[in-house]
Amino acid sequence: MQMAKVRGTVVGTQKLRSMTGVKLLLLQFIDHNGELLPKYEVAADPVGAGLEEWVLVNRGSAARQEEGHQNRPLDAMVVAIIDTVTVDNRRIYGEQQS
Amino acid sequence: MQMAKVRGTVVGTQKLRSMTGVKLLLLQFIDHNGELLPKYEVAADPVGAGLEEWVLVNRGSAARQEEGHQNRPLDAMVVAIIDTVTVDNRRIYGEQQS
Amino acid sequence: MQMAKVRGTVVGTQKLRSMTGVKLLLLQFIDHNGELLPKYEVAADPVGAGLEEWVLVNRGSAARQEEGHQNRPLDAMVVAIIDTVTVDNRRIYGEQQS
Amino acid sequence: MQMAKVRGTVVGTQKLRSMTGVKLLLLQFIDHNGELLPKYEVAADPVGAGLEEWVLVNRGSAARQEEGHQNRPLDAMVVAIIDTVTVDNRRIYGEQQS
Amino acid sequence: MQMAKVRGTVVGTQKLRSMTGVKLLLLQFIDHNGELLPKYEVAADPVGAGLEEWVLVNRGSAARQEEGHQNRPLDAMVVAIIDTVTVDNRRIYGEQQS
Repeated sequence: MQMAKVRGTVVGTQKLRSMTGVKLLLLQFIDHNGELLPKYEVAADPVGAGLEEWVLVNRGSAARQEEGHQNRPLDAMVVAIIDTVTVDNRRIYGEQQS
Repeated sequence: MQMAKVRGTVVGTQKLRSMTGVKLLLLQFIDHNGELLPKYEVAADPVGAGLEEWVLVNRGSAARQEEGHQNRPLDAMVVAIIDTVTVDNRRIYGEQQS
Repeated sequence: MQMAKVRGTVVGTQKLRSMTGVKLLLLQFIDHNGELLPKYEVAADPVGAGLEEWVLVNRGSAARQEEGHQNRPLDAMVVAIIDTVTVDNRRIYGEQQS
Repeated sequence: MQMAKVRGTVVGTQKLRSMTGVKLLLLQFIDHNGELLPKYEVAADPVGAGLEEWVLVNRGSAARQEEGHQNRPLDAMVVAIIDTVTVDNRRIYGEQQS
Repeated sequence: MQMAKVRGTVVGTQKLRSMTGVKLLLLQFIDHNGELLPKYEVAADPVGAGLEEWVLVNRGSAARQEEGHQNRPLDAMVVAIIDTVTVDNRRIYGEQQS
């Protein structure tokens, strides 16, 4: 999975019937230091992430491993909203535990 | 999925039988700011997109998740025509709602 | 799918039994303007393309979506020989219709 | 598979139910000379790797080829902790055998 | 498939049970002119390639299309040892036929 920041939404009304009811987020990828990368993915979001949140996004057939997604033509899906990212024992994202 | 602009068509008569009747569009990819990228995909289009329209394109096994596509050797498919793209609450593509 | 030009062949006699009888072409990728890219794929060719022809090549599990290919360890296959490529209503490859 | 170094962890509490109980490591990729690359993957770890260890990580549907992973939306998984890497008969990682 | 040169081996003892008995080669990729690329893959080798040999390697689910590999978490596999590569009717690898 890659880490990504929710940047916006993509909407289309003329689409495959199997795309009906799928919320599509525009996600910009983040590198392992927490910096934005010039790379994005439009992904289904069954988790309910909000603008600017960091999420984990999968790609490929993994995007259809979710109840109700099995027969949708999806190749990217949000699987979690990220709380914390820790690199070399240093918290690079999320609240410090108190 | 990636965003892409319909740039043209690709036609071949000598092909696998399973490719018969598949309309193939030449799609040029668009970045998350709406700029064209030097990257393309030739994708099946069961949606009916027109030249210059923005579309969402999937890749991989997702391209066969459509009635009549299951046994075709496709690895890219148009899943929707894009109406609007919104980044950081700013509309970067599509009509402003009135 | 990507567009590619047939540049040559790859031959191996010591191989998996499931690779027996598969003709392997060396394909060099072409960009959306028709220029050769520094990128290639060795792909199975059940279509019968010849040297210098332009072809459409798929990748991934799509390469096994063909009678007799289902259990072969293939990840790239020629699906069509390209007759014409049209970008922005301009023919960039193939004969002008008369 | 790619070689990668364990750099940290990613934690999220709001996630798909199928992600429950999956330990996620932040892995930074290593090139064939043993140098760190500016590329990472967040992968499930059923092996139990520790910080700074070198691991082998797979991607794609291979990440679900493990008891208990089959229906999880994973696209990357640690498959082994690396003991030794040998290039051109030279040990580039791991203890010299005595 | 890509062409690659066998550069070495990767060994790990702490691993998924399904990785037991899989020989893993470190393969460095070769471009379509026969030059080494700064890119590698660690792949299962059921063919029996030796150091410095050129091989064909697949990636993705194709790596499990082999008797005994179906349930292993592999995403890359050697499918053949290359005898000859011919580009534009010029032999770039392998013995000239006499």
